Amino acid sequence: MEKITVSLGYRSYPITISAGLLKYSASFLPLKSGDNAMLVTNQTLAALYLHKLLTLLNKADVKIDYVILPDGEQYKNLSVMNQIFTALLQKSHGRETTLIALGGGVIGDMTGFAAASYQRGVRFIQVPTTLLSQVDASVGGKTGVNHEMGKNMIGAFYQPVSVIIDTDCLSTLPPRELAAGLAEVIKYGIILDSEFFQWLEEHLDAILALDSKVMRFCIRRCCELKVKVVEHDECESNIRTLLNLGHTFAHAIETHVGYGNWLHGEAVAAGIVMAAYTSEILGEFMSVDTIRIINLLKRAHLPVRGPTNMNAEAYLPYMMRDKKVVKGNIRFVLPLAIGRAEIRTGIDQNIVIKAINTLQNS
Amino acid sequence: MEKITVSLGYRSYPITISAGLLKYSASFLPLKSGDNAMLVTNQTLAALYLHKLLTLLNKADVKIDYVILPDGEQYKNLSVMNQIFTALLQKSHGRETTLIALGGGVIGDMTGFAAASYQRGVRFIQVPTTLLSQVDASVGGKTGVNHEMGKNMIGAFYQPVSVIIDTDCLSTLPPRELAAGLAEVIKYGIILDSEFFQWLEEHLDAILALDSKVMRFCIRRCCELKVKVVEHDECESNIRTLLNLGHTFAHAIETHVGYGNWLHGEAVAAGIVMAAYTSEILGEFMSVDTIRIINLLKRAHLPVRGPTNMNAEAYLPYMMRDKKVVKGNIRFVLPLAIGRAEIRTGIDQNIVIKAINTLQNS
Ligand SMILES: NC(=O)c1ccc[n+]([C@@H]2O[C@H](COP(=O)([O-])OP(=O)(O)OC[C@H]3O[C@@H](n4cnc5c(N)ncnc54)[C@H](O)[C@@H]3O)[C@@H](O)[C@H]2O)c1
Ligand SMILES: NC(=O)c1ccc[n+]([C@@H]2O[C@H](COP(=O)([O-])OP(=O)(O)OC[C@H]3O[C@@H](n4cnc5c(N)ncnc54)[C@H](O)[C@@H]3O)[C@@H](O)[C@H]2O)c1
Ligand SMILES: [Zn+2]
Ligand SMILES: [Zn+2]
Repeated sequence: MEKITVSLGYRSYPITISAGLLKYSASFLPLKSGDNAMLVTNQTLAALYLHKLLTLLNKADVKIDYVILPDGEQYKNLSVMNQIFTALLQKSHGRETTLIALGGGVIGDMTGFAAASYQRGVRFIQVPTTLLSQVDASVGGKTGVNHEMGKNMIGAFYQPVSVIIDTDCLSTLPPRELAAGLAEVIKYGIILDSEFFQWLEEHLDAILALDSKVMRFCIRRCCELKVKVVEHDECESNIRTLLNLGHTFAHAIETHVGYGNWLHGEAVAAGIVMAAYTSEILGEFMSVDTIRIINLLKRAHLPVRGPTNMNAEAYLPYMMRDKKVVKGNIRFVLPLAIGRAEIRTGIDQNIVIKAINTLQNS
Repeated sequence: MEKITVSLGYRSYPITISAGLLKYSASFLPLKSGDNAMLVTNQTLAALYLHKLLTLLNKADVKIDYVILPDGEQYKNLSVMNQIFTALLQKSHGRETTLIALGGGVIGDMTGFAAASYQRGVRFIQVPTTLLSQVDASVGGKTGVNHEMGKNMIGAFYQPVSVIIDTDCLSTLPPRELAAGLAEVIKYGIILDSEFFQWLEEHLDAILALDSKVMRFCIRRCCELKVKVVEHDECESNIRTLLNLGHTFAHAIETHVGYGNWLHGEAVAAGIVMAAYTSEILGEFMSVDTIRIINLLKRAHLPVRGPTNMNAEAYLPYMMRDKKVVKGNIRFVLPLAIGRAEIRTGIDQNIVIKAINTLQNS
């Protein structure tokens, strides 16, 4: 079992990572006998895990209710979130209740925001079940929902009391979702930790086979890296921006093809390669390193180019609309070496276009 | 001009109280030339003040947009709040925007929660326009909306960057709303400040005539008292509970007659008298003080009895459902003298019934 403590003053909390955690009610501490809790999940995960969890928590004398939301990013909004409040009020949950989010980033973000807002704040426990939510969404305290006019526009910074990562959950995850999570994993290596990147090169096959010891280390290292960044920088600013490597390109792709056609992680994979090419053209990144990145992404079954029907010029208007644009100047995260990245503004748009074109024609 | 600083660590902010504040753009600091802002108000207030404020802020080079919500407690909900987000996104407001709440507690609570949640938190300025919101709702950082199953069930603790109280606004306020605010004013005197209570006895006529110097002092004293309580106790617990004097009875009245038939302040006025009678029966409060309270409330045009068609037994079931009930034990705030109150549990329900009956038959 791996245990990380996220230290944010009085809001410190543990992230526990291991196979089999969902078999033990002790994993759900600080929940204890006599407590009330509301489990929030979606239809897909309910079919797989709900019955087992209810039985487990009932046995531990936790008064557990549940609410099942529809599955999908398109349901991450205020009106579906309101179903959580309705369930809480129907079952007379008070301030002392605990919300448990069982699911990927969609359920985690929405349940976290509901916990931040219900009676102005109740406890919440994260049980992330996708690789992406285990290494990214469940760490850092960002919670929220989408507005029809923009993703993640409404939310709160709110910390869980505990994050429970059971690597066994990944066995039911669709392979494409696993790969999408790996894009973020590889991203951590590129921006922060060359040793970890090398470890990924050595262990990628074991990861794809979901070897539980390897998986545990992999997730732990990602959480540690994200925690380090977040502790430095709880309310978003500079260091945290490094986590956006590849994301400016990725948002352009996601918006262009329509959300849901490319998974976020898939777009991030292509975006990382575009960022690497941009750095290369600027003379700040070595082509051998670009090749290492491409090879690792390919082995993880991730795309290493943008959509074929999207030409380089098409990226720019989307990029200009990004939240990260400061005074019309796109802010890029660029790799300088495996394990090191920097935020850059004022990059000539022609260089970006050239980078995308070089990649697409490669 | 009266200025109070609310000190909550890095979130300190000023409350400024004076006649004529809305005539000067300097009142809206920290807003400055070049800033974006979104003014949130309702139809009633828009008709009275919107044009003047837009002109003022435009002149000061603030890029000001606005959104007008329907007027009424029944619109204080997530879906009406979503109109604020839509307006912000339609006008491309980013994280650096400022929301301005122009209105009573309904607009203030809803705008505050929108500010807490938009892109996980933007600045907000309170311009409370009812007496109740000037002395109560705009101080303390509670923001939120109602759920159809419960009042103020969804929200955040979130502090404004500035509270602007222009006593001139009260001139357009319906007299019943002014009286409702006075119930909370008188409440502060009873629970915390006997001198202030006496000052109110001496100045009530000037208050009803909206004498601006008297009004300024009155509001300032209430804000100071609430600030003192809130600074001690930012996230609700004991001292803050004293502010609920009369409210347990009031909630029973409001629920029984249906929200909107009695104004909150009117129900609080009757509730305060019921609490005083309860204390009297327990031998802890002098009847001369009850009489002083009744006389002052009457002069403020407030009710000093509950609804005639609501008998004493009818209060209890509502009281048992109150958030403040701990293990089936109603928690009462009881006055012990003018200027001093205490939280009490374990009070015999028959005493409460007797208190209400004595009052209703008096
Ligand atoms: N809060 C943050 O810091 C943060 C960071 C990154 C992403 N996000 C958010 O996370 C969301 C994406 O998260 P995601 O990739 O986990 O998507 P997701 O929550 O939609 O999950 C992907 C799919 O996998 C299914 N699934 C989840 N776990 C499963 C399991 N163990 N077995 C079988 N199926 C399973 C889900 O039902 C869903 O259909 C986005 O809304 C994004 O905005 C948040
Ligand atoms: N956040 C807190 O700590 C706190 C404390 C107390 C009450 N509240 C909330 O405040 C709300 C009640 O506030 P309220 O009493 O101000 O009610 P309100 O906001 O509904 O205003 C009362 C009426 O007066 C009108 N009005 C407001 N200012 C006016 C003016 N200057 N001229 C003419 N008309 C004017 C409004 O349009 C409305 O019709 C409730 O929702 C309550 O939950 C919050
Ligand atoms: Zn991402
Ligand atoms: Zn009140």
